[in-house]
This record gives sequence, C-alpha cells and structure tokens, in this order.
Amino acid sequence: MELLKEKIRQDGAVKGETILKVDSFLNHQLDIDFLHKIGEEFARRFKNKKINKILTIEASGIAIAAITSTYFENCPVVFAKKSQSKNLDGELLSSQVTSYTRGTTFNIQVAEKFLKEGDNVLVVDDFLASGNALLGLLDIINQSSATIAGCAIVIEKGFEDGGKRIRETGVQLESLAIIKSMNPKTIEFEN
Amino acid sequence: MELLKEKIRQDGAVKGETILKVDSFLNHQLDIDFLHKIGEEFARRFKNKKINKILTIEASGIAIAAITSTYFENCPVVFAKKSQSKNLDGELLSSQVTSYTRGTTFNIQVAEKFLKEGDNVLVVDDFLASGNALLGLLDIINQSSATIAGCAIVIEKGFEDGGKRIRETGVQLESLAIIKSMNPKTIEFEN
Repeated sequence: MELLKEKIRQDGAVKGETILKVDSFLNHQLDIDFLHKIGEEFARRFKNKKINKILTIEASGIAIAAITSTYFENCPVVFAKKSQSKNLDGELLSSQVTSYTRGTTFNIQVAEKFLKEGDNVLVVDDFLASGNALLGLLDIINQSSATIAGCAIVIEKGFEDGGKRIRETGVQLESLAIIKSMNPKTIEFEN
Repeated sequence: MELLKEKIRQDGAVKGETILKVDSFLNHQLDIDFLHKIGEEFARRFKNKKINKILTIEASGIAIAAITSTYFENCPVVFAKKSQSKNLDGELLSSQVTSYTRGTTFNIQVAEKFLKEGDNVLVVDDFLASGNALLGLLDIINQSSATIAGCAIVIEKGFEDGGKRIRETGVQLESLAIIKSMNPKTIEFEN
C-alpha cells in the first residue's frame, strides 16, 4: 500500500535496528482518516472471505480493528485481553504470548462465548514481528468453534520470522507494508 | 439515549452491586454498528465545541474514541497508556490513577507532543464510576498546552461520586446513560 509506505517514510522513526516508531498515526496518536484507508484496503483484500467477526488484541489493534469493521457488514470486533479483569468471567480461551516490545510473557484471553460456530474470523493487528501475538490469537480461534479467515497486518517486519511462521500455517496473511530492512537513516520495503 | 438504555437492559448483566457487564457490545466484544450511534450522539452533544482531538485511555476507550472521531472533522485520537513500553519515549505527561475494576494503582502516560496549543480535547471513555481515570486524563490535559472541551461517557454509575467530582470542575460532562441503582434483577436509570 503506497500511501502507507509514504506515511511510514514521512512520519516513522527508527530507533536502533528493531524499533519502528509510528506513534504519531498508528499506536499512540491515531490518524483516524488514515485508518479508514487501511480498513478499506483490508476489506478489499478479504472481500470474498465472508468475514463476520474481527479478532484483535489490546491495545494497539483495537482502533484499526474497529475502523476496519466498518467496511464489513455486521461484523463485531472482539479484543483479546492481556490481564485479568473483574469484567472477564465465564469460560475463557487463553494462549501464552511473549512480547518483544514489553519484554514480558503473558496470557491473552478471550471469552469463549464470543467465538462461536459460524464465526469466520479476520485477525487484525498493527505489527507483525516475531509472530508470537498473532500465533496466540490463531491458537485461540483454533480452540474455539470459529474458523480463521485470515490475518490483516498494517506493518510486517520482514526481517523477523513472524511472516514466515504464519504463512507456513497456510493462513492468508496480508501485510500492507513489509519492511525489508531499516536503520535510523533509511527504511527499505519488500512489497 | 434511549437506544443505549434498551441495550443495557437487554444485553447487560449486573454482578453483585457494583459490576455491570456490557462485554457483549462495549468492552470485550464491540458492536461497531452500535458504537457508530454512540459516536453520532457524542458529536451532536459537542457540535459547537470545535473539537479537534480526542483523548481516551487504553483499552476499552479506544474503539469508542476511534468511531466517535469519525463524526468530527480532522480529529485524531490519542490514547493514554497504562504501562511502560519501548514505543513510548520523549517528554511524557503522566498522572496516577487507582482502578476499582483492576484493584491497582498505576500511572497513565501521554507523549507531550500529542497535546499541543490549539488542541481542543474531548475526553472519551466507556465508564464513569469513581472518576479517577477521567480526572487523571483531565490532569494530563491541564499539564499540557491543550484545552479541555468536555467529557463524553457512555455509562455513568450515578450511585458513585465520579459524575459529581467532574461536574464540580465546571467541565461539560455528557453521559449517555446514568445508572441510578442496579442489582442482578433490575437496572434503574436517572436520565
């Protein structure tokens, strides 16, 4: 997606060799007009998949998922939670995830009642790097009676192995920008 | 907002005397079509306030804020973060918040560069109970050069004192449903 690559080049900042900061439009401040363009593009790429549910993970995936949902018909969003809450009860599906960004391992959880037979689920997230979070979300869908429709990612770090791990499962993975390499001076894209 | 009260009566569940579960449409599974109606109503109530930024807090506020933003012109969303992240750096504004739901005290943080002079900020969240989270967000805006336009809340627990605490500050507070009292059998509204 050319517009996204331009936006990353213009507003992104690379810290060291692995951190890409896109906090001015994607994961701290959110450029909602731009997220609409992302949602529209995801809808175009998955238009034949009869998607009727979106699964994401708190916190950065939520806005992207909510806006993307607007481009599918009658398509609620469910977000996996990273911590215990008094608001979470009943039967839970969970999976263990190690996060590079936060340097921790944690359980992600979804109430079982929100992933039912007949739900064809698109998984949405902002970043794909090691693939741990995304594989955790796919694991949760596999534990439920719902089916996996595909994965919609805004930015894939092509120099990490998450994309390969997901594609090997046979799941349709659409990453709107795939970064081949980056450093504080330049960002090179694969796609 | 009649539609919201109906939705709460139909899909909400009261646990004990203080927990209202609305996880089927507001804070775990998200009914995006319904969030559009909420966003439209917030826009109607604040239409003369020249709002050009929305501030919320992860995680439950994000989807509501993102959809609400769609009903204002050129209005990015910023969400306050509850935990340290490698993605958060530069000058930070922070405030301490005690959460009843999670039983913890934590700092919420916003990068200073996203609340600037000229930003007229609407604060959006799903619940108002003790008011601690909302007062934390207002504190952060007061530390910045931005101005407070008002607070937009989906559900206020009228039997807790958060609403009183916010209204005493003189800030325009709009709660779409105010619960007077509730128990597992009935929910009574003030408005």
